[in-house]
Amino acid sequence: MTIGGRSFGSRLFLGTAGYPNQRVMLDALAASGTELATVAIRRISLDGYSESLVDVLARVAGGRINLLPNTAGCLTAREAVLTAQLSREALDTPWIKLEVIGDRDLLYPDVEELLRATEELVNDGFVVLPYCNDDPVTCRKLADLGAAAVMPLGAYIGSGQGIRNPHAIETICARSPVPVVLDAGIGTASDAALAMELGCAAVLLNTAVSKARDPVRMAAAMRDAVAAGRAARLAGRMPVRGFAEPSSPQLGLIGG
Amino acid sequence: MTIGGRSFGSRLFLGTAGYPNQRVMLDALAASGTELATVAIRRISLDGYSESLVDVLARVAGGRINLLPNTAGCLTAREAVLTAQLSREALDTPWIKLEVIGDRDLLYPDVEELLRATEELVNDGFVVLPYCNDDPVTCRKLADLGAAAVMPLGAYIGSGQGIRNPHAIETICARSPVPVVLDAGIGTASDAALAMELGCAAVLLNTAVSKARDPVRMAAAMRDAVAAGRAARLAGRMPVRGFAEPSSPQLGLIGG
Amino acid sequence: MTIGGRSFGSRLFLGTAGYPNQRVMLDALAASGTELATVAIRRISLDGYSESLVDVLARVAGGRINLLPNTAGCLTAREAVLTAQLSREALDTPWIKLEVIGDRDLLYPDVEELLRATEELVNDGFVVLPYCNDDPVTCRKLADLGAAAVMPLGAYIGSGQGIRNPHAIETICARSPVPVVLDAGIGTASDAALAMELGCAAVLLNTAVSKARDPVRMAAAMRDAVAAGRAARLAGRMPVRGFAEPSSPQLGLIGG
Amino acid sequence: MTIGGRSFGSRLFLGTAGYPNQRVMLDALAASGTELATVAIRRISLDGYSESLVDVLARVAGGRINLLPNTAGCLTAREAVLTAQLSREALDTPWIKLEVIGDRDLLYPDVEELLRATEELVNDGFVVLPYCNDDPVTCRKLADLGAAAVMPLGAYIGSGQGIRNPHAIETICARSPVPVVLDAGIGTASDAALAMELGCAAVLLNTAVSKARDPVRMAAAMRDAVAAGRAARLAGRMPVRGFAEPSSPQLGLIGG
Repeated sequence: MTIGGRSFGSRLFLGTAGYPNQRVMLDALAASGTELATVAIRRISLDGYSESLVDVLARVAGGRINLLPNTAGCLTAREAVLTAQLSREALDTPWIKLEVIGDRDLLYPDVEELLRATEELVNDGFVVLPYCNDDPVTCRKLADLGAAAVMPLGAYIGSGQGIRNPHAIETICARSPVPVVLDAGIGTASDAALAMELGCAAVLLNTAVSKARDPVRMAAAMRDAVAAGRAARLAGRMPVRGFAEPSSPQLGLIGG
Repeated sequence: MTIGGRSFGSRLFLGTAGYPNQRVMLDALAASGTELATVAIRRISLDGYSESLVDVLARVAGGRINLLPNTAGCLTAREAVLTAQLSREALDTPWIKLEVIGDRDLLYPDVEELLRATEELVNDGFVVLPYCNDDPVTCRKLADLGAAAVMPLGAYIGSGQGIRNPHAIETICARSPVPVVLDAGIGTASDAALAMELGCAAVLLNTAVSKARDPVRMAAAMRDAVAAGRAARLAGRMPVRGFAEPSSPQLGLIGG
Repeated sequence: MTIGGRSFGSRLFLGTAGYPNQRVMLDALAASGTELATVAIRRISLDGYSESLVDVLARVAGGRINLLPNTAGCLTAREAVLTAQLSREALDTPWIKLEVIGDRDLLYPDVEELLRATEELVNDGFVVLPYCNDDPVTCRKLADLGAAAVMPLGAYIGSGQGIRNPHAIETICARSPVPVVLDAGIGTASDAALAMELGCAAVLLNTAVSKARDPVRMAAAMRDAVAAGRAARLAGRMPVRGFAEPSSPQLGLIGG
Repeated sequence: MTIGGRSFGSRLFLGTAGYPNQRVMLDALAASGTELATVAIRRISLDGYSESLVDVLARVAGGRINLLPNTAGCLTAREAVLTAQLSREALDTPWIKLEVIGDRDLLYPDVEELLRATEELVNDGFVVLPYCNDDPVTCRKLADLGAAAVMPLGAYIGSGQGIRNPHAIETICARSPVPVVLDAGIGTASDAALAMELGCAAVLLNTAVSKARDPVRMAAAMRDAVAAGRAARLAGRMPVRGFAEPSSPQLGLIGG
């Protein structure tokens, strides 16, 4: 899979917030096999007092984990653009996971502000991965504006409800000219597998791992689930049938 | 996992019917990592003209695949018991997947006949794995009669509809004194992961692999999906929340 | 609709337990338009100290409400048969809602005992309406034994979860030679409408009304929901389509 | 219910397209009890050769049916605003159901254009009812701009898939300062009841009635379903419970 000109061996992207401690976070990142970890740009800054997360990440997993700064907490295009610029300067990367939230309680995207910020950041040379609604029209517009991928939500951020509207995600995947990364809502392994089966190129999750009882084991589960869902998609699943069909032949020696 | 005194490294059981050809079947078995393959006793017998399936299976996957003969197509306890006895004689194994069907179209179990056959076969020394309804009371009775495992259906045999009533499967798993093996209905990888997350000890499937466009790839997908679902179960998933919860801190340098 | 030779104008059957008080129960019965109220035979007996429920019911709703005694709480065929006989003697009716429970926590039917009790009671001249699993084979056997109707569960008694497996209910309705009455699980009006759309002849519910904040209003809602679901079934619903289809013409004066 | 200063006795709004013929349409409108019928402004114009739909509607159902012209087929704010102005002139009503579509296949709204058109039309004195995504942020913005109601979709127009994401609709209803009218996706009566139970003030549908085998009967079903769902909402449904709870007392004369 290629996004923004960079190849990825793993189709699982992981967040870095909310772990019991940094040791668990790093072990979970390693167990997940991820090559892209998202970090709120604000937190990195606030972490300045200790060794920065950036330096730490550079040393785990053989240095294969790239950083994807995000604009979590931004409510307007202007705020998000400023945060992205700060991030590029501080972390020396043009990659940005773009979040522009229209509701602090629901953490739901604001479509207008998101489109505006995407346009501005693309024009400014960023590799933009916008977190967006499960809305095929908005996804297409984001791609038309030059987003490197689109990241529709499965459910509310941090809710663990899974994919509320699989049909919408499937439609978006079927029509998107850029990779679709399911973002938000994943609660457990089968959710991640389903996302891949619907046609997503990758899955981004955080709370499902950081708030599991055993985050490292869950990270490994997610790694396998994404691989399973991807393979199932490529294998071409059997059709769903309304009624039963014997797998074993029904005629034979006895009875029958 | 231990069933009937035998240990299994793989929690995926696979059927042997309906593959494009024997080569694909053997490759799928190998790719799945399974250690237990189910075979309709009638088909084995009819295969007598050529090298028997039994001999073939003994040579693949390092000989790690055990045979689980089944009584597919039997409509009464009497038929099923006779078939099991024939199977034990021919294949030299006391293991039997017990199917007693009450409806030829739906391939739905007949609870009364199933309980009768289970009792008789257990008393006769068989290791009995009955295919049954997603009914907690019937499952408990089967366990009380000495079944080595219970195998409730997720949906109609061969339908690929997934798990129609996850709550019932979860209830059965929570209360069963013997391992629960989800049998029938699995259509794709996320279904298999879900079964394990609900608490199943293993998954048995056939058509989802044999009728995939690429059975060998799907077999590998199922292997990973079962591992993922099992790990997610053990990792203790996050709670489902009604509303959003930020994974990233919401206060910081800009805006906020 | 005719069950056991009796015609019903209303397709809603109602339970009489768990109401805030008798006044509310009687008002709810009246508002529901029901012509059949189910009563636990034990409760009637215990009510002997005051005016019996039977006498009270005879006076409401213009006397149109018939009594359907039930064997709630019975765990064996023997207990249920004795309870039914006691009921017939005390209430002078051969009608019986047959409950034989295999699990006190889940209140789930015991299929073997249920079939045994049905056979015995039918032979003894009862009009038997058995509460059963959503299992097409058990439903067919109950009908074959002479049950006047079959009453598969939508979900656990008193759970309000709705219809957990609509496909199973639809299958049962499509194949049943006797009326199918959905029993248990209904939580709100749309659940009752769905039951009728799936092909049920009637709906039996209790807790959804008795434990609503306003039982009388909910009884009226259920009356309308059953009528709506029945009419929708008869009207022949539109097919479900995978994609959008304009209801309005797409060509015209402007743009287009 | 009051929308745009007008009171409605019926909470069902009906479309006028796709009926077998005008007679059936008028009978369905009458049977539905609706007081608001939506009409594509283009179709009215094209109908000019014969007696106009407006005149016909004025004569049925005692003249109680108001007209809600819609901008079906418009792809930009500009087109929609022009269509609305034409409609106001021709039909002498400031009411407009605003559709601005971003995808001709999916008939999915274009959020940016929709917000733009809403603002313009509200400022121009229209009573605007926008058809929109099931997106709480967009719904709130539409209300802030002065929309008289918001009309989120349940599923694709004309698909009959029901409400794909009930949780989103419930969230929108819980937070909306203006009435929420579920628009698009309804396939049968239980879908309409569910919409009302989730908190919608009304339901708008077309294909579910016009393409039913018997549109007039389905119109009556929808009338009852909306009434049932509304009453159930007001009655306060029982809580959903994970396990069974006896509705009948479990202790008594026999066994127990």
